[in-house]
Amino acid sequence: MISIRPDLHPAPSSLPHGAPHHGWPGLIHRYADYLPVTEKTPVVTLHEGNTPLIPAIALSAKISSQTGRQVKVLLKFDGLNPTGSFKDRGMTMAISKAKEAGAKAVICASTGNTSAAAAAYAKRGGLKAFVLIPDGKIALGKLSQALIYGAEVIAVEGNFDQALTIVRQMADHYPITLVNSLNPYRLEGQKTAAFEVVEVLGDAPDWLCIPMGNAGNISAYWMGFNQYHAIGKAKKLPRMMGFQSSGAAPLVTGEVFEHPETIASAIRIGNPANWDKANAVRTESGGEFHSITDTEILEAYTFLAAEEGVFCEPASAASVAGLLKVSDQIPNGATVVCVLTGNGLKDPDNAIANASAKFHQGVAPELASVAKVMGF
Amino acid sequence: MISIRPDLHPAPSSLPHGAPHHGWPGLIHRYADYLPVTEKTPVVTLHEGNTPLIPAIALSAKISSQTGRQVKVLLKFDGLNPTGSFKDRGMTMAISKAKEAGAKAVICASTGNTSAAAAAYAKRGGLKAFVLIPDGKIALGKLSQALIYGAEVIAVEGNFDQALTIVRQMADHYPITLVNSLNPYRLEGQKTAAFEVVEVLGDAPDWLCIPMGNAGNISAYWMGFNQYHAIGKAKKLPRMMGFQSSGAAPLVTGEVFEHPETIASAIRIGNPANWDKANAVRTESGGEFHSITDTEILEAYTFLAAEEGVFCEPASAASVAGLLKVSDQIPNGATVVCVLTGNGLKDPDNAIANASAKFHQGVAPELASVAKVMGF
Repeated sequence: MISIRPDLHPAPSSLPHGAPHHGWPGLIHRYADYLPVTEKTPVVTLHEGNTPLIPAIALSAKISSQTGRQVKVLLKFDGLNPTGSFKDRGMTMAISKAKEAGAKAVICASTGNTSAAAAAYAKRGGLKAFVLIPDGKIALGKLSQALIYGAEVIAVEGNFDQALTIVRQMADHYPITLVNSLNPYRLEGQKTAAFEVVEVLGDAPDWLCIPMGNAGNISAYWMGFNQYHAIGKAKKLPRMMGFQSSGAAPLVTGEVFEHPETIASAIRIGNPANWDKANAVRTESGGEFHSITDTEILEAYTFLAAEEGVFCEPASAASVAGLLKVSDQIPNGATVVCVLTGNGLKDPDNAIANASAKFHQGVAPELASVAKVMGF
Repeated sequence: MISIRPDLHPAPSSLPHGAPHHGWPGLIHRYADYLPVTEKTPVVTLHEGNTPLIPAIALSAKISSQTGRQVKVLLKFDGLNPTGSFKDRGMTMAISKAKEAGAKAVICASTGNTSAAAAAYAKRGGLKAFVLIPDGKIALGKLSQALIYGAEVIAVEGNFDQALTIVRQMADHYPITLVNSLNPYRLEGQKTAAFEVVEVLGDAPDWLCIPMGNAGNISAYWMGFNQYHAIGKAKKLPRMMGFQSSGAAPLVTGEVFEHPETIASAIRIGNPANWDKANAVRTESGGEFHSITDTEILEAYTFLAAEEGVFCEPASAASVAGLLKVSDQIPNGATVVCVLTGNGLKDPDNAIANASAKFHQGVAPELASVAKVMGF
């Protein structure tokens, strides 16, 4: 077998906590040379990153049978980060730097993954965490993480844009650090996912397929691929293929969506913060942006679970729905990585609503009845 | 920094799927030399295992301040496996061996983690998956994984014991493989968590704290520690400290619980399948079994989330509640690993019900009102 990569795990032999630790140390310890940290940075980590790159066997076969070309698709499953999404990569940086700067509290406006990550890392770092949400617009289930991690949650009688305005003002006027994606350290942490992909494949993939909401993550991946390319760790750069839901597709149409609407709530954004960056990524990488419908997203979502055994958030499945939409463009022999940004367990209601599984109820508790239902 | 462990990642340079892959290959590829597999075994993997061992900074400090002794506690967070629990470790083995034996379908009786893992791995391996549940005794949310992974779910009008009896009969009479914990390959896969702990620490810990339901996992860890000890990878063996809820504590009292009751549903078992094995582990390791109350479990559960930033299932927190109960026995300088078996996202309702976070509602969408609520 074996190509050993001794550079994969240059963990500190002892973490600050004092126990010997030869395992994955988290992003900042692992990639300190590539991040804006120093030996004095107080690293707040849940040992995020190091998520699996799972071969998409059924998806590769489906595309090959449709196109007649050999394609190798892999899934970067960032839903297996500690709080269940790629946001942990940015938050370990944002919270560590906030702590280094002497912050005692952080704040964000969010309805989902960002609030969970902010709460977990802030509390682990001994900081207070405040999360602003639009009142009445959020299912209580979506709050479970922010609440259990112990954030102070403030529901304002307004929409998300108003909440974001207020948290920016709070950060301007009070000793409290903003950890929304406007925080510059977030993308620095997120770029490490590209490093991991290059290390596992031995090079960049030919294509990177990724969902776009605020378009921070596509910008971060591109930054990471370029950084590894510049020092020779990657020999090529990927085409960056970004996908949005057709109900919230400003980067595809070039127009702000005043009322973005999609089942993929994590990318329900009408006016992305990183619009210019995303366009630059598209141009520089020779990539493309496309929209897919919610129906296509949900088809990819259920396909991934039922055929690959990978349960991601609906928004994550946009990368796979998009790949399927443009699969006739994939070159023969290409390696394609689809980014799955969040864990499906974040949204069990969507799973129950969209599963196509057979569910037999009221069966008598005896062998013959069960065997009959099962088709024996 | 650095103690490089080249043996940590002896991944195949190319997985069966064909793409080069230098990353974590999953348990079976990684630990093939220690598992009952051959080159002919068709490996069904989601690249499970390789879960982080997270230093429990706040918990260590709490115990040190209570006892006056220096204690290093770490959390083996197996909730970051692909389907969100340690069951994936056993299921990659059980499904691969079932496929090797020519099975076309698998079956289990379960209400939670086992059904999710069975469904995901079976479908990934191209097998059918059947899950029997007791009708009306299961919240629909608990089914979301089995349903989205595409298991065929059969609700029988009886209790869990009746469901288990039927699946055993089905496996006896029809060409369908049982993947409940009676399947011998399950514990083989689960023992690899002990290998990972030894590799990260450079030795076994002094104590291993673990929740016990059917007591399969404590038996599997002990098997793994002994195997690595026998070949010199570990210099010592840990004391195995097993914990049960006082409402379902047969291994502590020595009596079957006819009506086990605990909020920690994953260990709500009155007559454990591995009773004899667990008693042998206790004797051989010089360990102890104790019960803790549901209140103590929930206190540990919220402490882990709000102080460590780690959100686990209630059942998982039994290992930490137990450690806190017997903390005055921990030797000075000891290294203690607490096993967290499942992801907290499996049970968002419990999180919402037990979070102590402040939740302000109806706040006016303006800076002054928000600042006042926040105490500025």
